[in-house]
Amino acid sequence: MTISSPASPPASPNPAPTPLGAKADKDTVRRHNLSLVLRAVHDEGEITRAQVAARVGLTRAAVSSLVEQLLEGGFLAESGKTFSGQAGRPGTVLKVARTGAAGLGIEINIDYVTVCVVDLGGTDRVRLTEHLDNRGTPPADVFRRVARIAVRAVESAAEQQLQLVGVQLGLPGLVSGGTVRQAPNLGWSRVAVEGLFAQALAALLPGRPALPVSADNEANLAALAELWFGADRTVRSFLHLSGEVGIGGALVIDGQLLRGAHGFAGEIGHVVAQADGPLCRCGARGCLEQYAGQPALLRSAGIDENAGVPGVADLERRAEAGDRAALGALRTAGEKLGLVLSGAVNLIDPEAVVLGGIYRGLARWLMPVIEAELDERVVSGLWPAGSRRLRPSSLSGDAARGAAALVVRDVLADPAAYAQRLSSRQG
Amino acid sequence: MTISSPASPPASPNPAPTPLGAKADKDTVRRHNLSLVLRAVHDEGEITRAQVAARVGLTRAAVSSLVEQLLEGGFLAESGKTFSGQAGRPGTVLKVARTGAAGLGIEINIDYVTVCVVDLGGTDRVRLTEHLDNRGTPPADVFRRVARIAVRAVESAAEQQLQLVGVQLGLPGLVSGGTVRQAPNLGWSRVAVEGLFAQALAALLPGRPALPVSADNEANLAALAELWFGADRTVRSFLHLSGEVGIGGALVIDGQLLRGAHGFAGEIGHVVAQADGPLCRCGARGCLEQYAGQPALLRSAGIDENAGVPGVADLERRAEAGDRAALGALRTAGEKLGLVLSGAVNLIDPEAVVLGGIYRGLARWLMPVIEAELDERVVSGLWPAGSRRLRPSSLSGDAARGAAALVVRDVLADPAAYAQRLSSRQG
Repeated sequence: MTISSPASPPASPNPAPTPLGAKADKDTVRRHNLSLVLRAVHDEGEITRAQVAARVGLTRAAVSSLVEQLLEGGFLAESGKTFSGQAGRPGTVLKVARTGAAGLGIEINIDYVTVCVVDLGGTDRVRLTEHLDNRGTPPADVFRRVARIAVRAVESAAEQQLQLVGVQLGLPGLVSGGTVRQAPNLGWSRVAVEGLFAQALAALLPGRPALPVSADNEANLAALAELWFGADRTVRSFLHLSGEVGIGGALVIDGQLLRGAHGFAGEIGHVVAQADGPLCRCGARGCLEQYAGQPALLRSAGIDENAGVPGVADLERRAEAGDRAALGALRTAGEKLGLVLSGAVNLIDPEAVVLGGIYRGLARWLMPVIEAELDERVVSGLWPAGSRRLRPSSLSGDAARGAAALVVRDVLADPAAYAQRLSSRQG
Repeated sequence: MTISSPASPPASPNPAPTPLGAKADKDTVRRHNLSLVLRAVHDEGEITRAQVAARVGLTRAAVSSLVEQLLEGGFLAESGKTFSGQAGRPGTVLKVARTGAAGLGIEINIDYVTVCVVDLGGTDRVRLTEHLDNRGTPPADVFRRVARIAVRAVESAAEQQLQLVGVQLGLPGLVSGGTVRQAPNLGWSRVAVEGLFAQALAALLPGRPALPVSADNEANLAALAELWFGADRTVRSFLHLSGEVGIGGALVIDGQLLRGAHGFAGEIGHVVAQADGPLCRCGARGCLEQYAGQPALLRSAGIDENAGVPGVADLERRAEAGDRAALGALRTAGEKLGLVLSGAVNLIDPEAVVLGGIYRGLARWLMPVIEAELDERVVSGLWPAGSRRLRPSSLSGDAARGAAALVVRDVLADPAAYAQRLSSRQG
């Protein structure tokens, strides 16, 4: 188990639009303003009450009262530093509490599980990865294994005086309403994952209050991690690919995940790359996954398609050594990725395409091939090779961290909803 | 020239989100609330002051004052009817003014021009279509022709006591910053269309104040018309295809047009249908347009590819008569449309795909083929044949109407910005 160094906080969630003329009761206004103040501190890192007041457009007296409540609730802390502005007394510098609410994020993928705890400031406080093959394992067994790993993270969080307020699962499949509708690479269909995992975790933590569990597609969470923790956070609209056994895709538009009408947007692995291509697990022919998914890439390079992470490392070594089969496999995968991505770019016109998962390590072979396709096929002419609109994902975010940060985001959006739980801890 | 019957109004624009704590000056609040009240009347059609107050959450006194300003500005009218609610005096029923602000929308396509005037209530008040081939004609000449048609609409609007407040052009190409960056089927590149058209129109209307001119992609405007005036306005997320000489595409997500990072989203005609297919005007190979664009469809059916609207009518007749070439052309177009649409659906997960332009008339041959492809290839399994998620566009909207309604939408969003112009008309 490693505890990572502090990293940048997630972007603040958008407040609900509130027309000026709309009636709002006093408690709604208070909750809304508590969130405004907490997010102001979160976004700035360190800030005085006077600076918060200027930023959110409330009076200093109102801000002081809200800050008091957030300090009592364990959401904020005073840093001990003071700051002298242009006028008035020096102000005490506020920051988000390092002990307090935190989110537990869990990525359950085909051949690994990553568990991560993120605090209110967005810092990754616990991180734990185990390689285990979940293919064909009954969901209840997978969740028992995962719960055992999660308990270690829960214990580590408690040692650091963090209070977990929720669990977010990321899974490689179509997820909606707490259920994995379909995860062909796990061999799952219609699995009520939220309930199953909540049970498995509760069984290992008897006597403790149950944590709320939510589930989402892992590619969505990886894209959120790139948005919140990536190298270039000025990019607010992008298409994110996670190369794994399957190919996860997610679209971020103006800083928001595009979920689609049924929650299934981003299934780029099943966009057709060649109409008469090989049969895919989804039932169709010639899906991108059949050319650029991890097993297809390994197989085409002459490596055991089930070799997992060591197999991908082997592919990199062989490509570096100039192995013809390895380079050929990467060229074919790059061509098909370029073909499908050119269509996606023509359709969506994103600012960037980000290559994550195994594509990050393979980027130096894949990118020139993909760029040549984009250069030829993107009709706006906005994707010339070398434009840096295509880039590998950054190392600082992954689906587990995105998942944990999503829990934290809910706290930032409405701290009052979590205040009782937190202050009772202090009582 | 025909003057159409009244139709339903466009959906109200979203108000700018205004956090409760933010400072807003008095004039901003007044303008915001004028828009709230105007949109309440617009959305309801007929409504009393008391009902407006209940709907927008302002006091009756405030609403009365705002309504007074909107009546004076010529935005609202009293209908003469009264309505007795559960309490209080009967209220006079308000509606949007039938004389007052209106928008001029102009679709300039490859082989026709449509001009349309829409009033504040969303009703189509003037409509005029002329078939003329704009291919290879210098832009200045096209705009002189179009301005002559527009002047007839301007005169008809004046006779109906409508006050045009702006012009919205729709063009078949990549449009941004007032310029057609590229319109391969017109043979245009880097044409400053807004300025050119404003000049051409001003030259024919000497001594009158110039109308502001905006330009957008025609497929975007056709999609907005479907959103605002289509048969099923509960559908808020859809992909809209306009089959013309080129294939226009536009994405509406949660009632908003997805414009893309550079304004070029929706270029589905240049998504690859077959990697090694015929060379397209855009420079790439195997674009969807090369199989399902109007010239490709006609050619493949054995009809002159430049035969335009009569050619499409001929294709329909031949298909109806069971002509083998015609049915084969439609089958191939349907397969390629299905292939590309399955990718788009996997990526975007829309509620519906709408077939407009020439595809509307050809839908009974295209739809079964497209549905079979969607059924096979959409991974979520949410697009079984016959699910009615694929449908022809409705007759009540087109790009010109969408364009005109877009102008009106700006008035609804900030009537105060247009009040002086309108009240000076009355002085």
